[in-house]
Amino acid sequence: MEIDKVKQIFQLLSEQKITFEDATKIINNFGFTDLDFAKVDTERKVRTGVPEIVYGEGKSASQIVKIVTTMLQSQNNILVTRVTPQKASDVTKYLPELTYDTSSKMLLWKKHTLQKTKGKIAVVTAGTSDLHVAEEAALTAEMFGNNVTRIYDVGVAGIHRLFARIDAIKEARVVIVVAGMEGALASVVGGLVTSPVIAVPTSIGYGTSFHGISALLTMLNSCATGVTVVNIDNGFGAGYSASKINHLGEYTN
Amino acid sequence: MEIDKVKQIFQLLSEQKITFEDATKIINNFGFTDLDFAKVDTERKVRTGVPEIVYGEGKSASQIVKIVTTMLQSQNNILVTRVTPQKASDVTKYLPELTYDTSSKMLLWKKHTLQKTKGKIAVVTAGTSDLHVAEEAALTAEMFGNNVTRIYDVGVAGIHRLFARIDAIKEARVVIVVAGMEGALASVVGGLVTSPVIAVPTSIGYGTSFHGISALLTMLNSCATGVTVVNIDNGFGAGYSASKINHLGEYTN
Amino acid sequence: MEIDKVKQIFQLLSEQKITFEDATKIINNFGFTDLDFAKVDTERKVRTGVPEIVYGEGKSASQIVKIVTTMLQSQNNILVTRVTPQKASDVTKYLPELTYDTSSKMLLWKKHTLQKTKGKIAVVTAGTSDLHVAEEAALTAEMFGNNVTRIYDVGVAGIHRLFARIDAIKEARVVIVVAGMEGALASVVGGLVTSPVIAVPTSIGYGTSFHGISALLTMLNSCATGVTVVNIDNGFGAGYSASKINHLGEYTN
Amino acid sequence: MEIDKVKQIFQLLSEQKITFEDATKIINNFGFTDLDFAKVDTERKVRTGVPEIVYGEGKSASQIVKIVTTMLQSQNNILVTRVTPQKASDVTKYLPELTYDTSSKMLLWKKHTLQKTKGKIAVVTAGTSDLHVAEEAALTAEMFGNNVTRIYDVGVAGIHRLFARIDAIKEARVVIVVAGMEGALASVVGGLVTSPVIAVPTSIGYGTSFHGISALLTMLNSCATGVTVVNIDNGFGAGYSASKINHLGEYTN
Amino acid sequence: MEIDKVKQIFQLLSEQKITFEDATKIINNFGFTDLDFAKVDTERKVRTGVPEIVYGEGKSASQIVKIVTTMLQSQNNILVTRVTPQKASDVTKYLPELTYDTSSKMLLWKKHTLQKTKGKIAVVTAGTSDLHVAEEAALTAEMFGNNVTRIYDVGVAGIHRLFARIDAIKEARVVIVVAGMEGALASVVGGLVTSPVIAVPTSIGYGTSFHGISALLTMLNSCATGVTVVNIDNGFGAGYSASKINHLGEYTN
Amino acid sequence: MEIDKVKQIFQLLSEQKITFEDATKIINNFGFTDLDFAKVDTERKVRTGVPEIVYGEGKSASQIVKIVTTMLQSQNNILVTRVTPQKASDVTKYLPELTYDTSSKMLLWKKHTLQKTKGKIAVVTAGTSDLHVAEEAALTAEMFGNNVTRIYDVGVAGIHRLFARIDAIKEARVVIVVAGMEGALASVVGGLVTSPVIAVPTSIGYGTSFHGISALLTMLNSCATGVTVVNIDNGFGAGYSASKINHLGEYTN
Amino acid sequence: MEIDKVKQIFQLLSEQKITFEDATKIINNFGFTDLDFAKVDTERKVRTGVPEIVYGEGKSASQIVKIVTTMLQSQNNILVTRVTPQKASDVTKYLPELTYDTSSKMLLWKKHTLQKTKGKIAVVTAGTSDLHVAEEAALTAEMFGNNVTRIYDVGVAGIHRLFARIDAIKEARVVIVVAGMEGALASVVGGLVTSPVIAVPTSIGYGTSFHGISALLTMLNSCATGVTVVNIDNGFGAGYSASKINHLGEYTN
Amino acid sequence: MEIDKVKQIFQLLSEQKITFEDATKIINNFGFTDLDFAKVDTERKVRTGVPEIVYGEGKSASQIVKIVTTMLQSQNNILVTRVTPQKASDVTKYLPELTYDTSSKMLLWKKHTLQKTKGKIAVVTAGTSDLHVAEEAALTAEMFGNNVTRIYDVGVAGIHRLFARIDAIKEARVVIVVAGMEGALASVVGGLVTSPVIAVPTSIGYGTSFHGISALLTMLNSCATGVTVVNIDNGFGAGYSASKINHLGEYTN
Repeated sequence: MEIDKVKQIFQLLSEQKITFEDATKIINNFGFTDLDFAKVDTERKVRTGVPEIVYGEGKSASQIVKIVTTMLQSQNNILVTRVTPQKASDVTKYLPELTYDTSSKMLLWKKHTLQKTKGKIAVVTAGTSDLHVAEEAALTAEMFGNNVTRIYDVGVAGIHRLFARIDAIKEARVVIVVAGMEGALASVVGGLVTSPVIAVPTSIGYGTSFHGISALLTMLNSCATGVTVVNIDNGFGAGYSASKINHLGEYTN
Repeated sequence: MEIDKVKQIFQLLSEQKITFEDATKIINNFGFTDLDFAKVDTERKVRTGVPEIVYGEGKSASQIVKIVTTMLQSQNNILVTRVTPQKASDVTKYLPELTYDTSSKMLLWKKHTLQKTKGKIAVVTAGTSDLHVAEEAALTAEMFGNNVTRIYDVGVAGIHRLFARIDAIKEARVVIVVAGMEGALASVVGGLVTSPVIAVPTSIGYGTSFHGISALLTMLNSCATGVTVVNIDNGFGAGYSASKINHLGEYTN
Repeated sequence: MEIDKVKQIFQLLSEQKITFEDATKIINNFGFTDLDFAKVDTERKVRTGVPEIVYGEGKSASQIVKIVTTMLQSQNNILVTRVTPQKASDVTKYLPELTYDTSSKMLLWKKHTLQKTKGKIAVVTAGTSDLHVAEEAALTAEMFGNNVTRIYDVGVAGIHRLFARIDAIKEARVVIVVAGMEGALASVVGGLVTSPVIAVPTSIGYGTSFHGISALLTMLNSCATGVTVVNIDNGFGAGYSASKINHLGEYTN
Repeated sequence: MEIDKVKQIFQLLSEQKITFEDATKIINNFGFTDLDFAKVDTERKVRTGVPEIVYGEGKSASQIVKIVTTMLQSQNNILVTRVTPQKASDVTKYLPELTYDTSSKMLLWKKHTLQKTKGKIAVVTAGTSDLHVAEEAALTAEMFGNNVTRIYDVGVAGIHRLFARIDAIKEARVVIVVAGMEGALASVVGGLVTSPVIAVPTSIGYGTSFHGISALLTMLNSCATGVTVVNIDNGFGAGYSASKINHLGEYTN
Repeated sequence: MEIDKVKQIFQLLSEQKITFEDATKIINNFGFTDLDFAKVDTERKVRTGVPEIVYGEGKSASQIVKIVTTMLQSQNNILVTRVTPQKASDVTKYLPELTYDTSSKMLLWKKHTLQKTKGKIAVVTAGTSDLHVAEEAALTAEMFGNNVTRIYDVGVAGIHRLFARIDAIKEARVVIVVAGMEGALASVVGGLVTSPVIAVPTSIGYGTSFHGISALLTMLNSCATGVTVVNIDNGFGAGYSASKINHLGEYTN
Repeated sequence: MEIDKVKQIFQLLSEQKITFEDATKIINNFGFTDLDFAKVDTERKVRTGVPEIVYGEGKSASQIVKIVTTMLQSQNNILVTRVTPQKASDVTKYLPELTYDTSSKMLLWKKHTLQKTKGKIAVVTAGTSDLHVAEEAALTAEMFGNNVTRIYDVGVAGIHRLFARIDAIKEARVVIVVAGMEGALASVVGGLVTSPVIAVPTSIGYGTSFHGISALLTMLNSCATGVTVVNIDNGFGAGYSASKINHLGEYTN
Repeated sequence: MEIDKVKQIFQLLSEQKITFEDATKIINNFGFTDLDFAKVDTERKVRTGVPEIVYGEGKSASQIVKIVTTMLQSQNNILVTRVTPQKASDVTKYLPELTYDTSSKMLLWKKHTLQKTKGKIAVVTAGTSDLHVAEEAALTAEMFGNNVTRIYDVGVAGIHRLFARIDAIKEARVVIVVAGMEGALASVVGGLVTSPVIAVPTSIGYGTSFHGISALLTMLNSCATGVTVVNIDNGFGAGYSASKINHLGEYTN
Repeated sequence: MEIDKVKQIFQLLSEQKITFEDATKIINNFGFTDLDFAKVDTERKVRTGVPEIVYGEGKSASQIVKIVTTMLQSQNNILVTRVTPQKASDVTKYLPELTYDTSSKMLLWKKHTLQKTKGKIAVVTAGTSDLHVAEEAALTAEMFGNNVTRIYDVGVAGIHRLFARIDAIKEARVVIVVAGMEGALASVVGGLVTSPVIAVPTSIGYGTSFHGISALLTMLNSCATGVTVVNIDNGFGAGYSASKINHLGEYTN
């Protein structure tokens, strides 16, 4: 809860600049707009430093339209994740300003251009089939102003491909490793770089890949230190966390 | 593989400062000392920026003694994780310079005092029983020169305890959340702070806690963004990753 | 088994008001009508205090029509759960008196208006996508005469939304918390209210949400006491149990 | 968070009965005493209506002594759950006022006698081996002033034993069913009574009982409505929730 | 392997009624017809006492036609299990002699009427949705000449329905209990009858029913003795085993 | 419930041979003796045709002594399963009439010699390590008057050992197959015999045997028909069910 | 990494036949062609002794066309696995030289005829439904020049079919056993042959077959030694490994 | 079954060199000695090409003594696996000829020196803690006459250690990779060598390593082709299979 804001309201109250009724009302309503089926978080930027994200799965096209329309008032960039092509087409009929990215399955509205970071985020994939998740991570990071390097299809089955690109990976301030099947790439990269590594297991594979569980377990048990993990296929979460970490290097300048 | 080093050796070779035989020999042996049952990584500091860690579980006291003795030559600090009290006592008979920390179950040798970071790492626990894992994280981070704030026993069952300390948590550059049972604290903290959060599930609980699986799943599915996860009870991994991230802010000064 | 009824029949027998043959026949047939493929429980209201429910999944439209037709004779309200839109349309062709609620996927026949309880049941959801299950719970509770308050989309990722509505939740005699993904809302609410909490995990999420298992485990391991749990997506069961509990407060007046 | 208390402090502030500094301090410290390794919740009674509980597992005897000593100041009854006989003996050396109950493995301090409820809670077990968990439930309920009826060893393998006692079970306002192995008793009881049923799976069994998972699944899938479930072996949680529900009937008098 | 047949061939050989070459050939080819993709077991009746069964799942319509055509030569009854309506229609175009039973999803060819057993097999289901699996069991048993009694929809949620039909169940020599969701019916029936009980878990249910795993575990852990279990939805296997057991009573006359 | 008995009491009541009060009392108490912590089922023999069994696991030695002492009055044979050597020794101090069988870990009291069946039960094991479970099955069957043939250590890794004994197995009226590790023996035997097969998975093995789960799954999926399965290590259940089936052949003589 | 190649480049460098810049460039690019979304491994044959394989699942038809077109330059045979009929038809429109095999779902381009091995690989299946996976194994082995014997539908339910073909199986240098359901065939074959056995679990079955997990566990726990296992339905992997092993016998000639 | 032997006996019979009775007796008894609790396989060498192995787990010291004593008559080497130090000491009191190897926990009796293979088997481990399982593999392979190279502690966290030894690994005809935790080493080695790779997951690790399941899944999903897998900690099985494969190269000379 907004302890800082509460204190600020105390201050105003104690200075008698606002009444007790006002203070109570402010507390009960600040931070979001109530759409009945959804509370749209119009002040999250203040709280977490980033524009609003809409988790698109399980929401109807019409719910997305209403939520995005409410958000437009706050003048932030907007990112809707996990949108099927059909749903995207239904949404953009009403909101043609939104762009649909087919590889990451995200709807984007980039109203403001953010300053690009000097530090880089490397997004590395084991195979071609991991590309959808990798693009979700890469685009998310770019939406938050990060400088992103893509290095795709360098899995350990042909490890010379990884070594050929290792310099570019080492250059990055944060590395995202996206891999399905057995997910061994995260351990190998984790042993080769000094930057923090965020591992994203993907549901690519069959049989005992168990829709990503095998890759997830590999990454959680990584013998290389400095590797943290997000949910299966959660490219967005990886891109978002990487952005937070990458900006730490920038902020202190 | 040490592409940079290989290039350097190319350079020397092309300048005829070393012979072809010497170049081959260097490649085959650089970076570790071979103890037959273990290859001690005497150059890891160069590669990953940190002193050598020994994973103590599954190694006998005598194996630990031999490995640590070899490491002593490289003048790094040393940290042996997951050491039972009995094994610790067997090791320190031979290596009295090592200190045993009972709460984190680590053996430490702090030969050099590192400069402390300005940025802080907050280690937050849900309950008193999560303390062992939290201390493993906190001490690891301190061994790598980080400024650490401990905030223990602020689980969501009595959420007012968390809000009373939220300012100290928000101040940190990186937050580690340690929680067992249902692990909900990670999501709540993740929704309240702007810094990256590393969640550590612990094996605290019974029945359907399944030795930490319940907390792990909670953390992987966190509805709050910016949360990444490590293995169950892996305090060391969290402390290590947090240190990498925390130093990003420092490096760029 | 209806021990009370058996005793009553004994009484009648011992008073020679019925014959031995009649007594045997009554025991063999009381309480239901036999449709061959289904035994319709026409006396359940007597036994459990509530109108008859039909579990719609796995039954054909024609089976539902036959079962409901039989029930109509007993003059109870009727509730058919888990009916797809297609099946609902097939059923209402023959039984136009039934109303289909698209959000809860239930068929309803409210022949009698029940007296509303003074005590309230609060139905709280973490996200917008949990709405289907929440409506199943809310409508079920309303069908049984409860006063229901809906508080939707107040998940812990933006916990200020929850605190803004906490008074309405605290006012309720019973609280139903509906949440998918990591399900942390149940623990947080459980720690803030004094009333009994029924937690409903939903199958919302992806990857390691494992179709609701993650939320289920979170809820079963809740560090907040006073939380009990029902099956994944079982809004009906939660609404039904909450109604039983809520009526306890009423009955004793 | 204590919205009510915050409002009260607003009131005081706006009436200038306290200073801004005092208000801030109150918010940061109210509700618990900080023992460094634990935040003892000295005001929980106000918040949730019940005395303080200590979860004993994973805490050392000395930690329990310190926590209980702090609690003594608030003049509540005390209940420490999941204490092994050895730990209990270590604790009572320092705190002889605590009584150890070997069947439920709880330490108790009943400083105040609570008024007994008129409504009853029935605790029903399938077998003799479920007795430990049942007693944890029964004693917890009694500590909170409930009238408890115990009906043990009436599992469905010999269902005539259950029917012989069904009247006593039907009389209760809330029923707790404790069962291991296949846990079928919960469904059978759930189909026979009109009161809410709380099912507690136990870890009794072998092989595919999977330490209580089989009973847990049975209970979550109960075809009888009105059954909610708690964690495996969580007698305390069942007793606590049952007490909350049972008191609803009392409060409204 | 047909030790008896081998001995018989020895006998013939030692009496020089067949040559060594013939003996070898007989051994290599007896008992089946080779269709290249399938070895049709034309002599299984001799070996196990029953007509040939074709497991229809995973076989194409044309493969089924070829296999059945080969079997026709051996003059046995034929039963093809797990055939979808579409596949059944494709098969019967070529083999109009086969009858498709929509409730059990089996193709049948009853060329010979078997003598009916005096002893009965009771097929009991918990709900209406378990009917498909129950019919697979009942029809299989009838195909093998058993006298079958069907008692459907007598689950434990309304246990008086079960007691009303318990006499018919007790009369049977073997009882098959078919139940999904929590599967408690098997334990209850197992505690009430003296005959062997075969329990068939079904995939009916949702959420934690895990497609039949919950019912399976319940049945394997049954506290009632005398219950054995088959695979989820394996009505055929239950009917087949029940037939074997039921005939034991007949054979010894 | 004892419908037959209820009818009998009706008869007596209607003939005025007993009073209404007596009838009620009889219903409430028939069938067991109440020991408070256990309801001893003194009439089960009448109900299920077999002597009383005590499940020893989770019961203290003193509880077993009290239960067995109560049973002694009903003049049945007694069998206590899953008794550790220590507990057995504690029990036999007070009840020296009981015999402890170390291989099956059962306590036995054979007061009456039952007539032996003509039909045989074959108990077949894959390995030497499965012997404990096999003996539990064999001794149980013998306690119930069955003629038992033991055929041990004939697993499929050396299938010639099985074929050497196949005649003895084929001779049996019921076959129990006991196997751990991958449990393939059940399928092979199931394909070779015409009698019903009861498969008992054992917890023998390591790694992916998962304490018997692997063998259990093998048996549930057996491609050979006529195989039913019991819980892991449940030798008692297999022996008991086999006895029921074997006696079917005897009864009809 | 290509240590041999690195050494060779050293040699050239030390002899001043190439410049330092050239050496670096060679290292960064040798071994593959970069298609941006994929790094095509044009030199894998040199590295692993086999032509290039494309894993078709998760790749679009257009990606497959581009990858195969790149490969055509290296004059190897080509094998694309796991291609649906629709995707195959889309690919062959552009690359009519590719042949689609419907049973194994592979696209093949056999530009060069390899010399056939003298040693044989036997591919053995339990049932007809395992044929797709078996053909993937058999065709893969043939693509690499192996002499393959197919022995289908010889599962243990009718073990005489296996013994009738055991000589052909014993003749093979390597045996691949393909089985779903309970997978017992691998253990039986493993106990009968002296050659190495590669077991392939298939997803054939229902209920507790858990899409191949049951067969996988059976095979991993095989009591017969000399059995190794690959992923569920991984016919390609089995054929590939068998080819490597079979060629060992050839190479040493 | 020994079809070849059966044919041979036919031959003898048809030539009247043996009687029919003799032939039957031979079939029933050939291949093993019956110890009642175990059938000792005295002819397995003939059948599978290797000396007899005793699986020590679950067998008592006295059972092992009896089995080994019986084997001694067949003049083979002997290997008893999975023997605890205590059991080993109990066995060697009676059979001092047996040697106990503490690292592999095997009892060995090497009566005959086998000719060593020219081809090598490489045993590679990821860490020092995997040594026990690796030695079980290496010693087994040596017992069967293989030339074994050990390369320990070359896990992917410090991949330069692996590359420094890659030449020795490439030289081997078969490679065994032993790894716990995330098991990524198998994929990396699999991508670098042309020989067949057998992967052995070990139970080394904690938390989500799940006693080896994580490493097992990694290996089954290996993106590198040519990798087959054995049970967790099954060093013996890997050594045995590797020996079979390695000898293929030798046999054809």
